[in-house]
Amino acid sequence: MDANNGTTIIVMSGDMDKLVAAFSIAIGAAAAGKETNMCFTFWGLKAIQKGNYTGKSFFGKMMGVLNRGGINRVGPSRFNFGGIGRWMFKVMMRNHKVTQLEELRKTAIDLGVKLHPCEMSMEVMEIKKEDLINEAAQSCGVAAMLEMSDRSKQTLFI
Amino acid sequence: MDANNGTTIIVMSGDMDKLVAAFSIAIGAAAAGKETNMCFTFWGLKAIQKGNYTGKSFFGKMMGVLNRGGINRVGPSRFNFGGIGRWMFKVMMRNHKVTQLEELRKTAIDLGVKLHPCEMSMEVMEIKKEDLINEAAQSCGVAAMLEMSDRSKQTLFI
Amino acid sequence: MDANNGTTIIVMSGDMDKLVAAFSIAIGAAAAGKETNMCFTFWGLKAIQKGNYTGKSFFGKMMGVLNRGGINRVGPSRFNFGGIGRWMFKVMMRNHKVTQLEELRKTAIDLGVKLHPCEMSMEVMEIKKEDLINEAAQSCGVAAMLEMSDRSKQTLFI
Repeated sequence: MDANNGTTIIVMSGDMDKLVAAFSIAIGAAAAGKETNMCFTFWGLKAIQKGNYTGKSFFGKMMGVLNRGGINRVGPSRFNFGGIGRWMFKVMMRNHKVTQLEELRKTAIDLGVKLHPCEMSMEVMEIKKEDLINEAAQSCGVAAMLEMSDRSKQTLFI
Repeated sequence: MDANNGTTIIVMSGDMDKLVAAFSIAIGAAAAGKETNMCFTFWGLKAIQKGNYTGKSFFGKMMGVLNRGGINRVGPSRFNFGGIGRWMFKVMMRNHKVTQLEELRKTAIDLGVKLHPCEMSMEVMEIKKEDLINEAAQSCGVAAMLEMSDRSKQTLFI
Repeated sequence: MDANNGTTIIVMSGDMDKLVAAFSIAIGAAAAGKETNMCFTFWGLKAIQKGNYTGKSFFGKMMGVLNRGGINRVGPSRFNFGGIGRWMFKVMMRNHKVTQLEELRKTAIDLGVKLHPCEMSMEVMEIKKEDLINEAAQSCGVAAMLEMSDRSKQTLFI
């Protein structure tokens, strides 16, 4: 593994289509032998949540409701129509034998892609470590993310 | 042309303002003598479609309706108001002698910017090669995109 | 300061959460001794506007109304609900001692982050130099942005 040839993907979006893109790129990078790190921040955290979570404060509870569901509950950035879009996308992806989001995530993990939750986002959104999937890598702040990025050939903000 | 000084732009957005930004950066990069590749995925494909297209399956037909129109039918990411935003933006750009999207695309092509459609997106959205403009470069997957990106100084996800 | 280790952030979004991310990364980069440049384009210009502005033409006036307010008037990209989302986010950020956007901007400026407005966007949206905060750096076009980016280890499009 070349020390300065990694791929870093900052995932802020919680939209299905953008998550599919993020995981597809991460898988391609890892398959090419690149050190691959994904840093999930804000809405992106949904991609590595177990499912629902509930914040402690009144606001945390509201965020929990607004951001409910895990990786199978995310909708596309366009044309969601209250869930119809998500369903339509899933059917089309299945029809064309494109891997679903949860499998993409599993493949990424199997290939050694590190899935880091962003510390500050977890705090603001009142998401605890136990709300995240067991495979989540250690949480990281901006400094740690930049170190990974400095070892990377490409850093994407999705 | 420096072999490791390219610019790669992954275009996932189909929003007018983001496409203007993407093509403007690509043109600037190509004008500076950089190897410039744009990879269009999902909604971004609209920027290199001929116009309407119709998928074969029921879902493909629905995607065709939802994503209808070519580069002249895209609206801004904000304040579209059912087309008024697009019209307003076009008038303002014309008033200020800013180049319209279709001309931007033409300039990019003339300067040697390669416009690659993403394979997987074409398949999922049931867009065929003949639905794309003739100037479209060969379709590419993640591996090919990463190779271009590894030769680049900057890789943007728009 | 390493000449080829900078960070360039193109900020097109005017969403609160994305601006928080952009400024947080910029601050982290500057704190790590990296040359850090932010280029604000389209909706991102709101982050360095003084407050309201009024374009001269009919369309410019409309843009002024649509894009009114400075950095304290931006809402999150999701769940804004006519301002409730913004308020909720601010309260949550305050409760968790996360720095507010205006302070983040001040910290970035204090650490030497350069805040460049994009020339073309200013023209299209009819925003004048005096509509921007005094700390704004000189405006730049794509060519100047790419030069900064060529000196950077990471270039993000937010």
